[in-house]
Amino acid sequence: MQNHLRTDRPAVLFDLDGTLLDSVYQHVLAWREALESVGIPLSIWRIHRRIGMSGGLFVRALVRETGRDLSSAEADQLRSLHAEAYRRRVGDVRPLPGAQALLDILTELGVPWAVATSGSDVTANASLGLLKLPAGVPVITRDHVAYAKPNPDLFLAAAKSLGRPITESFVVGDSVWDMLAAQRAHALGIGVLSGGYGREELETAGAYRSYEDPADLLAHIDELGIRTH
Amino acid sequence: MQNHLRTDRPAVLFDLDGTLLDSVYQHVLAWREALESVGIPLSIWRIHRRIGMSGGLFVRALVRETGRDLSSAEADQLRSLHAEAYRRRVGDVRPLPGAQALLDILTELGVPWAVATSGSDVTANASLGLLKLPAGVPVITRDHVAYAKPNPDLFLAAAKSLGRPITESFVVGDSVWDMLAAQRAHALGIGVLSGGYGREELETAGAYRSYEDPADLLAHIDELGIRTH
Repeated sequence: MQNHLRTDRPAVLFDLDGTLLDSVYQHVLAWREALESVGIPLSIWRIHRRIGMSGGLFVRALVRETGRDLSSAEADQLRSLHAEAYRRRVGDVRPLPGAQALLDILTELGVPWAVATSGSDVTANASLGLLKLPAGVPVITRDHVAYAKPNPDLFLAAAKSLGRPITESFVVGDSVWDMLAAQRAHALGIGVLSGGYGREELETAGAYRSYEDPADLLAHIDELGIRTH
Repeated sequence: MQNHLRTDRPAVLFDLDGTLLDSVYQHVLAWREALESVGIPLSIWRIHRRIGMSGGLFVRALVRETGRDLSSAEADQLRSLHAEAYRRRVGDVRPLPGAQALLDILTELGVPWAVATSGSDVTANASLGLLKLPAGVPVITRDHVAYAKPNPDLFLAAAKSLGRPITESFVVGDSVWDMLAAQRAHALGIGVLSGGYGREELETAGAYRSYEDPADLLAHIDELGIRTH
C-alpha cells in the first residue's frame, strides 16, 4: 500500500486572475488604457480573448493584428503602462466566491496546491494580498520561468515545487491558455467560467471538466476524486 | 418583376452595445459598481453574461442568483445608479471597427437599417453621439416597447418602423439575448464576437452566421446576399 499514489490527493495548480480573483476585467481595461496611450486602438473583446497568456506573447499577438511593428523597448513600456494602470484598479478587485474556502479545504485535507500565473511578481503580489495563503505555498510567476502560458513552464515549475508529478496534477484556470498549457504539460485542465470565457471554448481547448467558479468547483470536488472524508 | 421582394436589400436591425459600439465592458463595470453600492456583490463575469437583456430582467435575474429580494423601487434605483456609472465611463467608449463604414455602405446601397437596443433613451443617446446616423434612421429603445430582449418586441418595432417584414430581416447582435429575440421574432440572427461572447454561444443561441465585428461583417457582406453592385 505504501507505494501507491494517493489519487485522492492530486496536486492542484491554480491560475490566479479569473480563477481565484475577479480581476480579469480590470486587467482588460488596464491593457486597453496602456495600448491606447501609445496610439494602438484595439477592441476590448480582443484584449479579453488574450488575457492570461504571457504578456510578451500578448503584446506581440495584439500588435500583429493591428499590422504595426513594435520594438522590444516599446513592448517593455507597454507592460509597465499596463502594470501601472492595473495597480490603479486593484482596489476594485475581489476574490471570487469560494476561492478562499476552496484553498482552505484543500490545505486542511492535505491536498498540495500552488499558484501559477502569467503575471509578474509585482502584479501577482499586488493581487495576492486579497487571499490568505499558508506559508510555503509555491507562487510561480513569469519571473521564474522562461515562457509563460500557453507554454507549459509555469505549471511544470509549480508541480516541481510541490514535489508532485505533473501528470497526476490538476490545472485549474479560466482561459484557453491555461487549458492549452495544461495539455502541453500533460496535466488535466479544469475550467472555470469566472474569467468570462464560454464553457465551449474551455472544453474545446481541452478542459477535462468545467465549473462556474471556485465555489461551484468546491461544491463538486468529488468529481475530481478528492475525498473530503 | 415589380412584386418581387428585393432579397438583396433585406432590412438590417442592429443591436447597439457590443455590436456597433465597444461599450460592453463599460456597461459591465457600471453595473458592478451600482450593485456593489447597494450591497449586492456579484462576480463580473455573471454580469457580462446578462448584458444586453432587458434591464428589468437583468436585475431580477442577477438578484435571484444572490438569493436576495428586491423591491421595484430598489430595482429602479439600481437602474439609475447604473445609468450614472455608465455616463461617467462613456468617454472611454469607441465605435467598433467598421461600424460607421458598414452603416454608410448600407445607406448608400439603399438597404434599410435601424437600431434596436435594450437600453433606455437616455443611455442610448449618450452613446449614439459616437456614430453618424442619417436623419430618419429608427432607433428603438426599451422606452418604446413593453419588453426588451430576449423578447422580440424591439426588433418587431424596428422592422415595422422601416415598413419591412421582420421575417425577411437580419438581426445583428453580440449577445445570446439578441439571437434568442431574433428567433422569437422569426428574423435571422447574425452574431458578432465584439461584445465578448464566444462564437459557440452565439451559434447555439441560433446565429445563422457570425463575424468578428462590424468590419468583418462588412468584408463578408456577400454572405448575407447583399450585392454591393
